[in-house]
Amino acid sequence: MTRHLVVFQPSGKRGRIRRGSSILEAARGLGVDLETICGGRQTCGKCRVRVEEGSRSALGISSGRRHLSPPTEREWELLGEMAIAQGYRLACAATIQGDLHLFVPEGSRAVRQVVPKTTIQRAIPLKPALRRCYVELPPPSLEDPRGDWERLSQELGRNFGLAGLDIDYQVLGRLAQELRSGDWKVTVTVWHDREVVKVEPGLVDKSYGLALDIGTTTLAGYLCDLSSGQVMAAGAALNPQVSYGEDVVSRIAYAMETPQGLDRLHDVVVEALNDMVRNLVGEVGLAAEDISEVTVVGNTAMHHLFLRLDPRHLGRIPFAPTLHRPLDIKARDLGLRVHPAANVHVLPIEAGFVGADNVAVLIAEEPYNQEEMALIVDIGTNGELVLGNRQRLLSASCATGPAFEGAHIRFGMRAAPGAIEKVSIDPHSLEVGFKVVGEERWSGERPEVKARGICGSGIIDAVAEMLKAGIIKPNGTFNRDISSPRLLLGGTEPEFVIARAQESALGREITVSQGDVRAVQLAKGALYSGARVLMAKLGIQRVDKVVLAGSFGLSIDREKALTLGLFPYCEPERVHCVGNAAGEGARLALINVDKRREAAEVARWVEYVELTLEPSFPEEFAAAMAFPAP
Amino acid sequence: MTRHLVVFQPSGKRGRIRRGSSILEAARGLGVDLETICGGRQTCGKCRVRVEEGSRSALGISSGRRHLSPPTEREWELLGEMAIAQGYRLACAATIQGDLHLFVPEGSRAVRQVVPKTTIQRAIPLKPALRRCYVELPPPSLEDPRGDWERLSQELGRNFGLAGLDIDYQVLGRLAQELRSGDWKVTVTVWHDREVVKVEPGLVDKSYGLALDIGTTTLAGYLCDLSSGQVMAAGAALNPQVSYGEDVVSRIAYAMETPQGLDRLHDVVVEALNDMVRNLVGEVGLAAEDISEVTVVGNTAMHHLFLRLDPRHLGRIPFAPTLHRPLDIKARDLGLRVHPAANVHVLPIEAGFVGADNVAVLIAEEPYNQEEMALIVDIGTNGELVLGNRQRLLSASCATGPAFEGAHIRFGMRAAPGAIEKVSIDPHSLEVGFKVVGEERWSGERPEVKARGICGSGIIDAVAEMLKAGIIKPNGTFNRDISSPRLLLGGTEPEFVIARAQESALGREITVSQGDVRAVQLAKGALYSGARVLMAKLGIQRVDKVVLAGSFGLSIDREKALTLGLFPYCEPERVHCVGNAAGEGARLALINVDKRREAAEVARWVEYVELTLEPSFPEEFAAAMAFPAP
Repeated sequence: MTRHLVVFQPSGKRGRIRRGSSILEAARGLGVDLETICGGRQTCGKCRVRVEEGSRSALGISSGRRHLSPPTEREWELLGEMAIAQGYRLACAATIQGDLHLFVPEGSRAVRQVVPKTTIQRAIPLKPALRRCYVELPPPSLEDPRGDWERLSQELGRNFGLAGLDIDYQVLGRLAQELRSGDWKVTVTVWHDREVVKVEPGLVDKSYGLALDIGTTTLAGYLCDLSSGQVMAAGAALNPQVSYGEDVVSRIAYAMETPQGLDRLHDVVVEALNDMVRNLVGEVGLAAEDISEVTVVGNTAMHHLFLRLDPRHLGRIPFAPTLHRPLDIKARDLGLRVHPAANVHVLPIEAGFVGADNVAVLIAEEPYNQEEMALIVDIGTNGELVLGNRQRLLSASCATGPAFEGAHIRFGMRAAPGAIEKVSIDPHSLEVGFKVVGEERWSGERPEVKARGICGSGIIDAVAEMLKAGIIKPNGTFNRDISSPRLLLGGTEPEFVIARAQESALGREITVSQGDVRAVQLAKGALYSGARVLMAKLGIQRVDKVVLAGSFGLSIDREKALTLGLFPYCEPERVHCVGNAAGEGARLALINVDKRREAAEVARWVEYVELTLEPSFPEEFAAAMAFPAP
Repeated sequence: MTRHLVVFQPSGKRGRIRRGSSILEAARGLGVDLETICGGRQTCGKCRVRVEEGSRSALGISSGRRHLSPPTEREWELLGEMAIAQGYRLACAATIQGDLHLFVPEGSRAVRQVVPKTTIQRAIPLKPALRRCYVELPPPSLEDPRGDWERLSQELGRNFGLAGLDIDYQVLGRLAQELRSGDWKVTVTVWHDREVVKVEPGLVDKSYGLALDIGTTTLAGYLCDLSSGQVMAAGAALNPQVSYGEDVVSRIAYAMETPQGLDRLHDVVVEALNDMVRNLVGEVGLAAEDISEVTVVGNTAMHHLFLRLDPRHLGRIPFAPTLHRPLDIKARDLGLRVHPAANVHVLPIEAGFVGADNVAVLIAEEPYNQEEMALIVDIGTNGELVLGNRQRLLSASCATGPAFEGAHIRFGMRAAPGAIEKVSIDPHSLEVGFKVVGEERWSGERPEVKARGICGSGIIDAVAEMLKAGIIKPNGTFNRDISSPRLLLGGTEPEFVIARAQESALGREITVSQGDVRAVQLAKGALYSGARVLMAKLGIQRVDKVVLAGSFGLSIDREKALTLGLFPYCEPERVHCVGNAAGEGARLALINVDKRREAAEVARWVEYVELTLEPSFPEEFAAAMAFPAP
């Protein structure tokens, strides 16, 4: 039997293939990943490859389009004259008649590199849990009266090697109708090669997923195109559980002490997520039902409340959660209004307050694949720390309090329009410049928008500038010796004026008080001392890099964070602000199932350190309250 | 290493066992099924065995209690002095010190013979899908802060060999609470060694299941004790879908043509089942939540409507159902109010109108294990036939119409109080005696209860007696030559008076009309000709036995059924009335998972014959309309 040499580029895979085989068969035999939705029926047009002509072939083998069977009618239709002239063919249609040198374009590869849309979208191979399969079925007849499901599952077994498939009960209910409205030609979405979660009439080559990050204060959602891995629309919203308690401890108390409190907390967050979903799909002209899978991350308390799991034991020593391991739950069981058969993959949690959000940060940053000693600081309503590298990883949770989010600060507010977000103080005149959220650019001393308060990054800026200007001392107390009309000493505690009454929408001065400085000291002391305890455990004096995660990390000034000593010193250019890495981890888990396995592994491998139980912690914490000498 | 001969009775299993092993270990090694809920922790007290003393031993080996370690304190507690004096021991506690002859009492066998409560409960080994496991867990501590689920699943893995377990999402939500309220000692119910469906505090050694038969007209439910397999309470109710159509064809039409029609039909039947469940559990002092698994049978249309599957294609050639294979669905997904995590196992269907009810009849009757050629006739609103033996089985569905249920009969009614259910006619005087439902015994000519109508078995009786008395001829027409005041010839059609006006609660005569006789002829013709077609296909002239299933079968008189020719002739003593065999099949599938496999196999193996497409059917049907000559 005649065989021909076939080489696939760019992988370089090659082998001698039997004459008359299709290119698709050759690719399968040689382990070349080729996209095919229709399973090789010349319907989806996905498996296009280009023939390299002999003269152009760098391999020196005689190749060319005459070494393939002539284009079929379906190829002319699906590829068009132009593409065929350029040497493109459908791998399922063209059969091998001689040696060939073939190129597989990016778009035809089943596993593709994703081009990041912004700096925070990592490029990883696309490997979602959902697989689309196009099938054409023989309609039932008296000679072949098989049931609809038997007909479909046997075809999926034969054409796609999917054996022992299940079908979601809700999808089963509409199966008869979908098969017939598609005239027995349907696209089936299969989850983990295990369960049919969607049946759509005709050939459908798009599917969509949703990555959710449930923060204590902020909900973030990323609607993703599962054929590119790209974020199509992103959204954020306030977590409405805030009304029942600002921090996790008070929410746990609410859930415990109020009849139906847990149900209430669950319901409001799911409702807010449903609103967000409606907005996201609306933005890009989709329907909520188009979302076929969801991934979710969040800290342990948010994780339990979202899953309607009793959270009371999370707040008590020894902080045992109901479960650590990842879960897959039907969206309908959670009340999440996407496709009702969609599975919701909830990432695993580590321990105590170190939750699935931190796991998500880890799979986004992958410190376990690096030699560098990294300190990852995820600042949200809680501060979460990870320290380590490929040898060992420690994690800890710090009670930073909500100061970094602008709460428990006299004029504190969220980073909404009117919030002072950047502050500069002239060290000589002690005059103040600031920028308000909503201004296009830093406008110097005359803001275009009147200030309403100070948000988290503004308070960091203000305190750092006050320290550099000598208004406060390294121990945090005000320097009563300086002379400035902005220093107010007449009240119950000293204050420094950031916005004058005429610059303020409140009609009065906006100040930073001694109490505000103490709140910043407590928050930064918790972070700094937590990092020091972890460093001591690993026996290191310095970290190679600091990764600031959380949207807060995106807005703060790295120099000022170092000025205040939010974390142990590191060269400023080695401090990276990566934005919502937890949300990014959720997106990565959505588009690549290997990341889910990685998450489950790292959740077990990372060592959780309960800071409050470390003997050195109280002393470190006391020392960390002081600011570094300017 | 010293080994001793150990023999277990009544199985006779024996082997040489290492000295110091427990009896439980010996039993496991030798494949002796011994009940244990606690997994050998001397807690449940289930694994009791009796030592046979040497002198009594029929095996002639030296046996005796001195060949075992002395009873432990837990054994004294759990067994009591009396039982220990009689030679009883806990297999998990007693270790082997010499040769032993042991007897395993019925109550200690994991697989037990069920003693049937009534003639229609078959005795089969008990092998439910649910397994109870009692575990004692170490409470969480700072040194062991594992999540609740990790703690539980690891213990189940270690003690019961259950690896890779899942937990139902609803059960997970209550896990933290159940573990703590049981002080970390809980009984876990595991479904198919795969999924945790219940966690209860303390040691619980009972579990309950429900077998449901969803008939076109009648719903039947059997509440079973899964530790004995026995029916604890049985109930029946009218299928409320009757209001939307008496037969399956009109219900399919309703589901197709009415907006939300399918949902309505689904909802009403589930609601009626929920009512029935409430009554059943109430009768025996249980709660609906105590039901941990459910099995369901029903004809193809009832199957689809119960599952909320679009039934429209069932009514059209080629009658393709949405699926054939068995299904397991969460009770909560169906709206069935038992334990919300309970799985509902729906038995497979065959083809067309031959459904899961017929499969259930098959696993109850097991014709595929017999050499005898059996004709099984299941008479409900439809008539279903199975003919065959271990070599081959054919099935068919006959459009009998509802005449056998008393519908479409002038004075027809269901078998409710006041229905005439038995009739005798003196062939000389043509005087009539009858018995009414609600009367204790046949009261001769003076019924104690006044008649309101005639039910299915009454109409069979009446027509058979009219035939024997010559009131009607074998072709079904009335003999106008006889002279009796009961023969009324004045109306639009001849009638024969069964109950005189003074015997009737209606205040007028209750009669059997020419139209009624025709309805019986049509129904019996459909059954008889169907059986004949199947017999011709198998090339047989006679059947060895006839099995009448369905509650109708229980109430009719076999001799009269033969008189009318409801089915081809068979010696009267070889006609067996087995009652609701479909319900019994559902019970068998509930208490033994092997029966579920058997059902799936037989559903594929049995050959469905579409009678209306058989060339010989019209002729057979026409011939079968006539009654046998008396």
